[in-house]
Amino acid sequence: MITTQTTRRTALTGVAATAALGLTAGPANARTRGPRIGVLLYDGFSLLDPTGPAELLSRLPGATVTMIAEHRGPVHTDTRQVSVLAERSVAEIDRLDVLLVPGAGNRGTVAAMQNPVLLDWIRRIDRHTTWTTSVCTGALILGAAGLLRDRATTYWASASYLESTFGVKYVSERYVRTGKVITAAGVSAGIDLALCLAALIAGEETARAVQLAVEYDPHPPFDSGNAATASPELKALALQLLAQSQK
Amino acid sequence: MITTQTTRRTALTGVAATAALGLTAGPANARTRGPRIGVLLYDGFSLLDPTGPAELLSRLPGATVTMIAEHRGPVHTDTRQVSVLAERSVAEIDRLDVLLVPGAGNRGTVAAMQNPVLLDWIRRIDRHTTWTTSVCTGALILGAAGLLRDRATTYWASASYLESTFGVKYVSERYVRTGKVITAAGVSAGIDLALCLAALIAGEETARAVQLAVEYDPHPPFDSGNAATASPELKALALQLLAQSQK
Repeated sequence: MITTQTTRRTALTGVAATAALGLTAGPANARTRGPRIGVLLYDGFSLLDPTGPAELLSRLPGATVTMIAEHRGPVHTDTRQVSVLAERSVAEIDRLDVLLVPGAGNRGTVAAMQNPVLLDWIRRIDRHTTWTTSVCTGALILGAAGLLRDRATTYWASASYLESTFGVKYVSERYVRTGKVITAAGVSAGIDLALCLAALIAGEETARAVQLAVEYDPHPPFDSGNAATASPELKALALQLLAQSQK
Repeated sequence: MITTQTTRRTALTGVAATAALGLTAGPANARTRGPRIGVLLYDGFSLLDPTGPAELLSRLPGATVTMIAEHRGPVHTDTRQVSVLAERSVAEIDRLDVLLVPGAGNRGTVAAMQNPVLLDWIRRIDRHTTWTTSVCTGALILGAAGLLRDRATTYWASASYLESTFGVKYVSERYVRTGKVITAAGVSAGIDLALCLAALIAGEETARAVQLAVEYDPHPPFDSGNAATASPELKALALQLLAQSQK
């Protein structure tokens, strides 16, 4: 179960949310407005990192989910075979309630970590977010923006890089919260993060309904998703599959 | 654990795959060619339905994942807030090894079930696929195309519609296989389906590596994803959240 700050949660549900979210609408409008969720896309992102959380968070009452990139238009995934459309450029977005930074393969992650336009925008947006979040190697991008403190999680294969580069302790959990920053582990962990966020934003009952809405009762046919118990051979094969598929 | 047909699996791995997949390449090329996976997009699809499986299946050796729609270009999700690009039109694709039909809200599902261009294309493609698959209400579209037999699964709220309309038994499992047709339950179940498919196509060890590659060791903070154990109130709230978010 997740831990919620009652004061924050209270401030974010119902009519009271209008004040916390910076909205000035009255009760009628409060029902139709909700959290402004922005997902940062960049060339080479991994497809499930943003789309899993976006699916779940889009079901929160009144939520808007906006795909954002340095420039509007199609943004390629790490395989270069699929594109998601960025509806807005970073220049067009100056306030979000929730920022989510997905992960990518090496090429995409390194390029984003070295892109001052993206890092400046992340820092600027973070000043006013309620929650600043990442999935997978998106944590390294938050780190490059100077936003990680104390503890974080990231993709299992990037754990030592995270610790040595940003001086934060890697925690092998599905998601790790420090203040308003929540980092998730690799790729699919963004779905667990989204349920945590759903509860923080809209309360546990709504989060449970979101879980049912996406029938998230996972039963993978295998039990090989945890690097802590994986053999060196399986880890090597996983990284080889990623390297071969990423362009 | 899933059941695999050894003969089929053998035919689809390694150099032998070139014959089974209709490729004429020699060993060098065999390493770079793999299953041709096509994902059908249509207006109003649910974002995670196609993107979860696409993420996992894109890691199979040599796989190509193609987003396909009636026409090339951006295809809106059920919230109309996100678009994925269809790289190819149905007219451009006449052979696939794996077809995946995602689900949608009511509007998108009904429109697809009544679209003769999509249904004709699904039937034509199915003649030569190794696997014809669906996620969520995509099963209803397979049903409208006349491809369901005996048993299937779908989104929990569509179970009785599936049974009464297509005369197949609804099975409450993450995915259900009858011959070469595999239907998955709602939204997130496509990820479990993808692991099953990965094993059928490339063998269990590769499927396990794919699971590790996406760090799929799910730990949702709640246990509310199964409709069979959900209260009537939670079901009503889940459907209300969906209805309010779908445009």
